[in-house]
Amino acid sequence: MKKPTAKVIHYTEVPLQEVGSHAPGAGIRWVIDEEHDGAPVYALRVVELTPGGQTPDHIHPYEHENFVIEGRGKVQIEDKSYPLQPGDVVFVPAGIRHHYENAADVPFKFLCGIPVSHLISKQ
Amino acid sequence: MKKPTAKVIHYTEVPLQEVGSHAPGAGIRWVIDEEHDGAPVYALRVVELTPGGQTPDHIHPYEHENFVIEGRGKVQIEDKSYPLQPGDVVFVPAGIRHHYENAADVPFKFLCGIPVSHLISKQ
Repeated sequence: MKKPTAKVIHYTEVPLQEVGSHAPGAGIRWVIDEEHDGAPVYALRVVELTPGGQTPDHIHPYEHENFVIEGRGKVQIEDKSYPLQPGDVVFVPAGIRHHYENAADVPFKFLCGIPVSHLISKQ
Repeated sequence: MKKPTAKVIHYTEVPLQEVGSHAPGAGIRWVIDEEHDGAPVYALRVVELTPGGQTPDHIHPYEHENFVIEGRGKVQIEDKSYPLQPGDVVFVPAGIRHHYENAADVPFKFLCGIPVSHLISKQ
């Protein structure tokens, strides 16, 4: 693993990567990660959904810790939907079905932290 | 450890705790944590510094992952000082001397993620 290295950047300096055709309008910036920064415990990402954008309804063996930074959206956690605005905090435990969507005509942006790879299998 | 439990809240719903006399003007909200939410890997906190507020220059055996949400501030990491504005991301590795301060006349607020207790000793 890379040695942990201090950094200070604006999130927009980190390239936005398209998530793919299963998540139309979704992009992600890995602002602190294992590979580049040596983050020992979790990776911090900024997820951006364009108007109409969404992530697929999915389940995975690790949790999400979210903080909404811009726009308006929705998160569905199992069978319940919650409106989201800036300052909202979301905790989605591992193994819980969920998806996010933009609910306005401006970008919807939120932080999404996930464990580094070697900690996922230990939960 | 508490079973991980989904939640959606606004960060202001979580009580602001004073950090103490060593950090004048500093408050903290534990918005996702081990004790209440069963966060398995890291705790997400919102740190708020009033105008003139600051944290002490300190070192500890775990990293910080920060995202600035409001106001203007500064972080000093070892001998280098960086101005901070909303959208800035800071990674302070374990064992690195650092402190934060408010640099404006409005509250300075940033996210600060730290490992859960049982992961700190394993780094």
